[in-house]
Amino acid sequence: MVSTWDAPVQNELRMVEEQLRESVHSEQPLLTEISNYIISSGGKRMRPAVTILIFKATGGIDSAKVIKVASAFELIHSATLLHDDINDHGEMRRGRMAAYKKYGTQKALIAGDFLFVKSFALGGVFPEKVISVVADACTGIAESEILQSDYERNQDTNVDVYIKIIEGKTARPFEAGARVGSYLAEASPAVMDAMGSYGLNIGIAFQIVDDILDVIGDEKTLGKPHGIDIIDGKPTLPLIIAMQDKSHGSRIKEIFKKENKSPAEVAEAIGLVKQTNALGASSDLAEEYANKALLDLEVLKPSEYKEALKALTKAVLDRKN
Amino acid sequence: MVSTWDAPVQNELRMVEEQLRESVHSEQPLLTEISNYIISSGGKRMRPAVTILIFKATGGIDSAKVIKVASAFELIHSATLLHDDINDHGEMRRGRMAAYKKYGTQKALIAGDFLFVKSFALGGVFPEKVISVVADACTGIAESEILQSDYERNQDTNVDVYIKIIEGKTARPFEAGARVGSYLAEASPAVMDAMGSYGLNIGIAFQIVDDILDVIGDEKTLGKPHGIDIIDGKPTLPLIIAMQDKSHGSRIKEIFKKENKSPAEVAEAIGLVKQTNALGASSDLAEEYANKALLDLEVLKPSEYKEALKALTKAVLDRKN
Repeated sequence: MVSTWDAPVQNELRMVEEQLRESVHSEQPLLTEISNYIISSGGKRMRPAVTILIFKATGGIDSAKVIKVASAFELIHSATLLHDDINDHGEMRRGRMAAYKKYGTQKALIAGDFLFVKSFALGGVFPEKVISVVADACTGIAESEILQSDYERNQDTNVDVYIKIIEGKTARPFEAGARVGSYLAEASPAVMDAMGSYGLNIGIAFQIVDDILDVIGDEKTLGKPHGIDIIDGKPTLPLIIAMQDKSHGSRIKEIFKKENKSPAEVAEAIGLVKQTNALGASSDLAEEYANKALLDLEVLKPSEYKEALKALTKAVLDRKN
Repeated sequence: MVSTWDAPVQNELRMVEEQLRESVHSEQPLLTEISNYIISSGGKRMRPAVTILIFKATGGIDSAKVIKVASAFELIHSATLLHDDINDHGEMRRGRMAAYKKYGTQKALIAGDFLFVKSFALGGVFPEKVISVVADACTGIAESEILQSDYERNQDTNVDVYIKIIEGKTARPFEAGARVGSYLAEASPAVMDAMGSYGLNIGIAFQIVDDILDVIGDEKTLGKPHGIDIIDGKPTLPLIIAMQDKSHGSRIKEIFKKENKSPAEVAEAIGLVKQTNALGASSDLAEEYANKALLDLEVLKPSEYKEALKALTKAVLDRKN
């Protein structure tokens, strides 16, 4: 039994860190600096952990390749964070100034491109199948960002659209990482499918929790102001549900769809969302997906990695930032 | 003897177009639209032509892989064009509104990322060596963009720095395309080196001509206003040389380093540059590199492809847009 989800892959996660540092080395020190700035704000490395744990849990032995794939994903994830902050005008990330605020939009944009290319460079050692799974997932990120912007400030966005958006931007990349982990371990097609499903389900749960935290998160723990989704008019699950509320829905809608919102209006909307059943219902749905993810793990033989994946699934629900 | 440089690879260039259209297909029609918009403004396809002609000239037979590499390069080139326009505030490209002006910064940025990922997807079929050559060249693009921004409005930029910048942003990608073309044709190391050198030299000549055109180009033929480099304070070869001119150098410097320039000042600077020896000296240097490129071709056996590469080299010097 393991108490924390990263315990059995500490060593591999350290190797991912090393790979990331090595990948972002550049003759232009500023590119390395911006890259390290965003990489070190990347959080808990749940993404690479999922890939590596699944590789191990499905019988993978030599971790070298899976570390490169996990690192490539993390580089792509970091690149999208850099560009997302530019697009969303997010001023803070994990308690620090957003990179484009610190280094300027131009340089943050170039650094994002640099990280994309560096992930491409790691791809040289992957089988064709792995490249196509990674590329498809990353295509989906861009596609879901376009879809998301289509629904900006749209009060009538439904849950199906929401799920499609978060699948593309969060869950499919988790799924791809999970699938690739089991593929590199030469797991059977059935196990690969189960692991892909695990990644998808945990990714959806992860993003729902993210969207709940934007409403209720403590700004200090979160490392950024909350209410960003309301400010940006992003139709997240809690907001979609709250906007259907009989008592407060119409006022929340009114604020949600305004182009410019005052801090008082944002605070009012947050207060009203909390008075609805939206947060409870969203938590329930996140838990439902996490439970599906746990079921997907049943296909695995007992191991410390399987236990760690269970712990990680619970950690996704419990996280505070 | 061929009269035009693309005659013997018309068929392959058509296949590159098809590959590009296929690659940018997306379930989000807007991503496909923006991608096609930038791809179709991409100009004369000299980059893929160099790669394919060299593949053929060095004995390559089956074009399928080289078409994928050439297409991947063109996708990356298009991605950087999308992001460059955002960074440089360029309002026009080849006679049309810049993509970010037409579709918004947010969507153009995402479309650029989408194109990066699509080039990555093509990489699945390449040998590791090819991936690393392509990735290194693309890393160099980002690095030289940072270097270029370091020298913005720096009146003391010297020719060595200029060459380093244009090597990174233009010549190394040409070199990589040339090298990969001969690599896929299984050419000898000596031939590969010669072809790499050809690509590097033609790339430098290409960029010098680009920078000359920014001073003397006809806006209608150019498809964008000229004087952009002066407005942006980019130290191009003509400007670097003109700023050393005894009679007009100090006034050109004065305008060059101003943060905001009036249209009258830009016109004045252009007029003064034309009165110096800068354009002649820049043309001479471009010709010098083109001649080196022609010498690099000597290693090739006689063929229509070799003749086309010679014609392409001359076309680089003669181009008007």
